[in-house]
Amino acid sequence: MRQANHKFSTSTSGKGLYNITREITSWVTRQKVNTGLLTIFIPHTSASIVIQENADPDVLRDLNEYFQRLVPEGDTNYLHRSEGPDDMPAHIRSALTQTQISIPVNSGNPSLGTWQDIYLFEHRKQSHTRLIHLHLIGQ
Amino acid sequence: MRQANHKFSTSTSGKGLYNITREITSWVTRQKVNTGLLTIFIPHTSASIVIQENADPDVLRDLNEYFQRLVPEGDTNYLHRSEGPDDMPAHIRSALTQTQISIPVNSGNPSLGTWQDIYLFEHRKQSHTRLIHLHLIGQ
Amino acid sequence: MRQANHKFSTSTSGKGLYNITREITSWVTRQKVNTGLLTIFIPHTSASIVIQENADPDVLRDLNEYFQRLVPEGDTNYLHRSEGPDDMPAHIRSALTQTQISIPVNSGNPSLGTWQDIYLFEHRKQSHTRLIHLHLIGQ
Repeated sequence: MRQANHKFSTSTSGKGLYNITREITSWVTRQKVNTGLLTIFIPHTSASIVIQENADPDVLRDLNEYFQRLVPEGDTNYLHRSEGPDDMPAHIRSALTQTQISIPVNSGNPSLGTWQDIYLFEHRKQSHTRLIHLHLIGQ
Repeated sequence: MRQANHKFSTSTSGKGLYNITREITSWVTRQKVNTGLLTIFIPHTSASIVIQENADPDVLRDLNEYFQRLVPEGDTNYLHRSEGPDDMPAHIRSALTQTQISIPVNSGNPSLGTWQDIYLFEHRKQSHTRLIHLHLIGQ
Repeated sequence: MRQANHKFSTSTSGKGLYNITREITSWVTRQKVNTGLLTIFIPHTSASIVIQENADPDVLRDLNEYFQRLVPEGDTNYLHRSEGPDDMPAHIRSALTQTQISIPVNSGNPSLGTWQDIYLFEHRKQSHTRLIHLHLIGQ
């Protein structure tokens, strides 16, 4: 049994879903771990990780737009406004989605479903560089 | 330290929560792993995994009904409509819940709380066969 | 490769976020595991685990208030009312957040981001004693 760790960064340019599957699966493949568990962790509180449909780009657009409506900017109930009108909604969107996802690894690859890809879900309007941590344990 | 993997499928017949605890715990018990970590992963983007109360069936009904209201079908904001009016809501419901849950294993069993059971949360109206991946690591 | 397990309890006094980072990281540090994976699991269905911003306490207040509005008490749609008006909302709030979070461990510490802390999110009004399970695997 052994472990491997990896960190990489992704540039985002506004709210929405960014496909990070290829970077993740290519790293996993290089580790030559046949069977194991992959963990994806995002060390931010205004961006998150989701697994979503990879077939129709409208799904990604609709998902982001839904979160815009569910957690609107400019809600006068928010006390936390010093970092901009999109910051408190970003924290709420993070709590409603995932900070971490683990995926079983079989035959050297994360066992994603046919229609699944891994996305960084950016919740801030401005451009950001986001870090992703990967951890793999197996043999 | 060792690992085990398992896949099984469950039939669903419409939106709602389906108890998959017994199938999961009986598999874990058979692995004879005293201490470890169990991971439950669903390779779909329109069904998810949640841990919920197992005592009152009304909780499961209320939870599903709440998600019907929170993510309504027929929202004219959705561009993704080609797979039916329940498909885009299904993807959103998946993002709002979990694609994966890990549970510590102690004394050979997942350490669920007294009132906790593991549910497949189906988000589509029609009948589906859903796959579940299990991964166990421990000793 | 080795494992460690730990359980601890936290007292809560009403809905809101309770910082449990120090108790978790001090236990991890004592295990002398340099590289690994930490899993935090809550064996309850009316309290959850979230990673949130640790800088401005208003974020925690706003997050809790948002969930009060998103999942209101006294919704006449709920059938499950026998345990009080805050119980069904508590189960829904749990489903919308996380029952478990795993964090990679590097250099003997959970690799949290600068602004991240780990919170128990209490969803009930009355005082509770909440249990937290920790599982660590690594070397």
